[in-house]
Amino acid sequence: MSDDEVNVLFMPSGLRGKVPVGTTVLQAAQRLGVDLESICGGQGKCRKCQILPQEGVFPKHGITSRLDHLSEFTETERHHQSKNRLKDGRRLGCNARLLGDLVVDVPEESQQHKQHIAKAVTAYDIQVLPALRLYTVTLPEPDMHAPISDKRRLQNELAREYELPIMDCELSQLRLLQKALDKSERRITAAVYQHQQIIGIWPGEKKVVYGLAVDLGSTTIAAQLCNLDTGEVVATADTMNPQIRFGEDLMSRVSYVMMNEGGDKVLTQVVREAFNQLATRAAKSAGIQLDEILDVTLVANPIMHHLFLGIDPTPLGTAPFTLTTDQTTVIRAADLDLYLHAEARVCILPCIAGHIGADTAGVILAERPDLAEEYVLLVDVGTNAEIVLGNRNRLLAASSPTGPAFEGAQITSGQRAAPGAMERIRVDPETLEPRFRVIGCEVWSDDPEFAQKSAKVGVSGICGSGIIEVIAEMFLAGIIDQDGVIGPVEGKDSDRIVLEGRTYAYILHEGDKKIRITQNDVRAIQLGKAALHAGTRLLIDRMGISKVDRIGFAGAFGSHIDVKYAMVLGLIPDCNLEKVGSVGNAAGTGARIALLNLPSRLEIGEILPKVEKIETAIEPKFQEYFIEAMALPHKVDPYEELSKVVKLPPPKAKLENGSGDGRKRKSRRRRSRV
Amino acid sequence: MSDDEVNVLFMPSGLRGKVPVGTTVLQAAQRLGVDLESICGGQGKCRKCQILPQEGVFPKHGITSRLDHLSEFTETERHHQSKNRLKDGRRLGCNARLLGDLVVDVPEESQQHKQHIAKAVTAYDIQVLPALRLYTVTLPEPDMHAPISDKRRLQNELAREYELPIMDCELSQLRLLQKALDKSERRITAAVYQHQQIIGIWPGEKKVVYGLAVDLGSTTIAAQLCNLDTGEVVATADTMNPQIRFGEDLMSRVSYVMMNEGGDKVLTQVVREAFNQLATRAAKSAGIQLDEILDVTLVANPIMHHLFLGIDPTPLGTAPFTLTTDQTTVIRAADLDLYLHAEARVCILPCIAGHIGADTAGVILAERPDLAEEYVLLVDVGTNAEIVLGNRNRLLAASSPTGPAFEGAQITSGQRAAPGAMERIRVDPETLEPRFRVIGCEVWSDDPEFAQKSAKVGVSGICGSGIIEVIAEMFLAGIIDQDGVIGPVEGKDSDRIVLEGRTYAYILHEGDKKIRITQNDVRAIQLGKAALHAGTRLLIDRMGISKVDRIGFAGAFGSHIDVKYAMVLGLIPDCNLEKVGSVGNAAGTGARIALLNLPSRLEIGEILPKVEKIETAIEPKFQEYFIEAMALPHKVDPYEELSKVVKLPPPKAKLENGSGDGRKRKSRRRRSRV
Repeated sequence: MSDDEVNVLFMPSGLRGKVPVGTTVLQAAQRLGVDLESICGGQGKCRKCQILPQEGVFPKHGITSRLDHLSEFTETERHHQSKNRLKDGRRLGCNARLLGDLVVDVPEESQQHKQHIAKAVTAYDIQVLPALRLYTVTLPEPDMHAPISDKRRLQNELAREYELPIMDCELSQLRLLQKALDKSERRITAAVYQHQQIIGIWPGEKKVVYGLAVDLGSTTIAAQLCNLDTGEVVATADTMNPQIRFGEDLMSRVSYVMMNEGGDKVLTQVVREAFNQLATRAAKSAGIQLDEILDVTLVANPIMHHLFLGIDPTPLGTAPFTLTTDQTTVIRAADLDLYLHAEARVCILPCIAGHIGADTAGVILAERPDLAEEYVLLVDVGTNAEIVLGNRNRLLAASSPTGPAFEGAQITSGQRAAPGAMERIRVDPETLEPRFRVIGCEVWSDDPEFAQKSAKVGVSGICGSGIIEVIAEMFLAGIIDQDGVIGPVEGKDSDRIVLEGRTYAYILHEGDKKIRITQNDVRAIQLGKAALHAGTRLLIDRMGISKVDRIGFAGAFGSHIDVKYAMVLGLIPDCNLEKVGSVGNAAGTGARIALLNLPSRLEIGEILPKVEKIETAIEPKFQEYFIEAMALPHKVDPYEELSKVVKLPPPKAKLENGSGDGRKRKSRRRRSRV
Repeated sequence: MSDDEVNVLFMPSGLRGKVPVGTTVLQAAQRLGVDLESICGGQGKCRKCQILPQEGVFPKHGITSRLDHLSEFTETERHHQSKNRLKDGRRLGCNARLLGDLVVDVPEESQQHKQHIAKAVTAYDIQVLPALRLYTVTLPEPDMHAPISDKRRLQNELAREYELPIMDCELSQLRLLQKALDKSERRITAAVYQHQQIIGIWPGEKKVVYGLAVDLGSTTIAAQLCNLDTGEVVATADTMNPQIRFGEDLMSRVSYVMMNEGGDKVLTQVVREAFNQLATRAAKSAGIQLDEILDVTLVANPIMHHLFLGIDPTPLGTAPFTLTTDQTTVIRAADLDLYLHAEARVCILPCIAGHIGADTAGVILAERPDLAEEYVLLVDVGTNAEIVLGNRNRLLAASSPTGPAFEGAQITSGQRAAPGAMERIRVDPETLEPRFRVIGCEVWSDDPEFAQKSAKVGVSGICGSGIIEVIAEMFLAGIIDQDGVIGPVEGKDSDRIVLEGRTYAYILHEGDKKIRITQNDVRAIQLGKAALHAGTRLLIDRMGISKVDRIGFAGAFGSHIDVKYAMVLGLIPDCNLEKVGSVGNAAGTGARIALLNLPSRLEIGEILPKVEKIETAIEPKFQEYFIEAMALPHKVDPYEELSKVVKLPPPKAKLENGSGDGRKRKSRRRRSRV
């Protein structure tokens, strides 16, 4: 062993190896294939790569591990410690450097969250009027001359002191009542749900309880733990949806249910277990007990919604795509096998239609198009795009089958948004040379320091927002023509454009892995954007307007794409670019609004039945619009303003190569859909 | 083996023996000590002694058992068969006579109910307006052009066809909805609870569901299973309260809870298990499934009420005797670990005060004194007597500590009302000789056939109603004086009156057991009747009336006592004897009314808070009235009419024996109370 190298052993994985002195723990983990999370790419910001160095002799491994075999605490670590974000004994893997042999424990919460989860908590002013409120009262002594029960004295006191209506109390809490009264001289705190029901009893004064707003996605489950008194988000946590092992996309999970007796119960169980783990992590991270969580709001797409509730989602897999329920469901957490307070309530926002879920209800709650004067278009892009259009007078909603391309799936070099994924891509229109930036590395690929700085994350693929950019950039550079065909650009030699069989591909990067865009990739994006465009156009038609006033992209995809490129590709209709933007994780924000603001929670149940649902599958015009929208930006362009925004490429020689033929395109589309 | 004898083997006990040809199976069982129930004493009325004769060779026992080794079906058995009360293959043990060797199976429901349970189902006209109703609807096909969920289509159809309000549906039933729709071409039946909530879903047309009215007593639990469509009682079942093994009376069960950590949980668990067994038996007997039971009403005294709900009853054991709740409790059966339909509801009627339970609420519901013009006095005698007095303008209620004497407990020869117990007793005023009748034998003890006819049940003790009669008869014969002292009657020699230490006793019967009345027994009855009288008088005082118009005795005790004797002893205040009577098991009837008639169920919650509760323990006058009421009938007699009804005995020499001293009596009372 060289003097310049140290031994490092990671637990609980048992992975070990030698690394140069001065390597950060995160780098060592990445090199040895240890599952240590990092989102910020080692910048000391995300605090995900927390590790616990061990002290002691490990004879089996020949390692004497000492805490001072790590570099001293950095300024960054001290800062996080002072904010209680870095617990005793822990270090940031990206800050702590190995100076000697060390055994490193990777805590559970630093493991297995390889995906970069973009469902960040957006800042939002919400009036805190929670469904659950605490009231502290001192009950009068019982009087044998006028005997009334503990419960009735509690009711009377709540009415007298807080003008609350007389309400029932859950039996499980009644059982605690007399001991609570004994313990604290008849001073107790009651938690009242929706002004209707006492669901919690504590002796003395209880000042704070907590609520959990959950966005249950097919890929990711994200939770925001909120103080129900201040509304403050005290912790966030997210995890992969463990159902992924039964099918990456929703339809394959429905297939799993159809093919396996009891399969729905298995899917229900694993997602609830994930919920429990998530809640436990969030509670731990906030330093509270699970039984201090008394309220939950949850949004999900229709299939996740049904599975979470234990309802067979099979009918959602085939026409007529009938929901079992399209109403708000309020149920005891315990009845869903969720382990929070014994009487914690779960409020699951309603689905809108078979393809439009409670997540869209969350988006509506976050953006409130139903209150807008102007016409608002909200788009949540995933495997399907949920589209909402309207204003205070009328709301329309549809779901359009965009396919998984926008999420980077079924794209040759596509991947989820994780470290090493290209998220920003430019193509020089003169040289046709690409440059890019990957998640986890702050410099562009043409920066001299890129090789060094990107070494720890590598260059592994292209994520959704990167794909939009590269296709648009290739189009703007003339590498892709209006029909979506890749080919050489007249007068510009480039060894990036290579023939693969009968079609061309564009090489972005050649490293360990060759990252490239193929003709099929372009077709997948064309199909996706055509579906999104056709769905949007149907709603605009139905609304009888020619132009929308504002466009909001919801979700992870929306947070990352550059709207200019979305417009280049024709993903979105004509709109003042200043009025186009990300609305963040609006679904999750909607869940949080529902959690913190009871009137909104009740209102959404009123709004949704009035939303007109457009089933794209049975709209005759959908196919027509779809075909028209395959072109880049489109053959029939109803959006005149586009040309003002986008510098269209010059007419190209490749127009003549025959691939632009409509019939051929149509047949390709059919094949792709099978 | 004589030709005149046959072999009989009882299963599952395995008890066997020889009996004369022509012996009934019931007699054989009684002779061999087999646990075969009989309430009517072999009259063919109670149908409790049902047995199942076996056919086959039992070599181990040397028995060839044949069905025709029993006498032919009697008229009585055919009658019960035609009413479906005697199932195929079964015989009445009291009707079927042994003609040859036989193996007899004693079905579970014919075993182990040794106590004579007097909580019979009383005839009562109840308007059947149940809380739970069935509605069958055919849903329209789903329409992709106007997608609405299965649940909403169900709601809409219930509203359209039955004008029901839009109501929620329990999640467990939502899970069944789509399969029910698939199974029967979208025709389904929904069970609606209290016009508010869908709690049951079945494919096709479901015509009947069932409800259970339960009277949860400290000694006995009795259930009536009702068809919720017709109101018919389709089965009754009762069982001992298994809590008895933790304490015969309620206060000893409270002590058990106080002395044993987790004792309340044990008591709660065993009583719920008994409920489940009872429900299972009732369902089996009616030939229905447990999950066809969707509604339960239950009455109980405060301690049983709290224990059944899982609330610690300890505070009910000491002043100020505060109830945790005095309101109607509606809860899912599953939340009480009761195994009925998944969404079955249990409605537990409210308790009135610490000593006045939901059983009294049931009595009020059965008798509705709150609707009466005249003043009604209702008395439910047990270890405590619950007393209700009033009319449409005002209701008063109290509980008075009568002690267990009226139930035959803590009486030297006292026993519960079971076969062999004296229930009717006369004392000849001339000869001072007693005659009596025992439960299970139709002839009086002075009948020549008594020895033979009572042989099977024996003479084992005196039950509550017998004690009232014998004390009153002894008083009328002069054996007991007005102060309650037993002694020889001047001029009438009798070897029935014997000195036992310092006091006399009266010998009723000398057989295997000597049955007698001691001075302490008379004192116990005096204490009980004084308590009852004092409680009643307090209420009459408080009401400001001098006389009640009607008196109803509720419960087993009330069903058996001869009201004339109750009046002789001064148990009840002055009233026209024609207006005094048993109101049967009014508590159980109240439970059934609540089950079958929703308006009553809701009304009782309105009535009870208006009932004025008198806590006898803190009423200064209670002690005074109590002491005054120790005499027979009483020293201060506010009830002038009594002399018209009761022929008072002549003044007696025994008045001079000094035991009549008030001070002494008082001290005795104190000792007895400790």
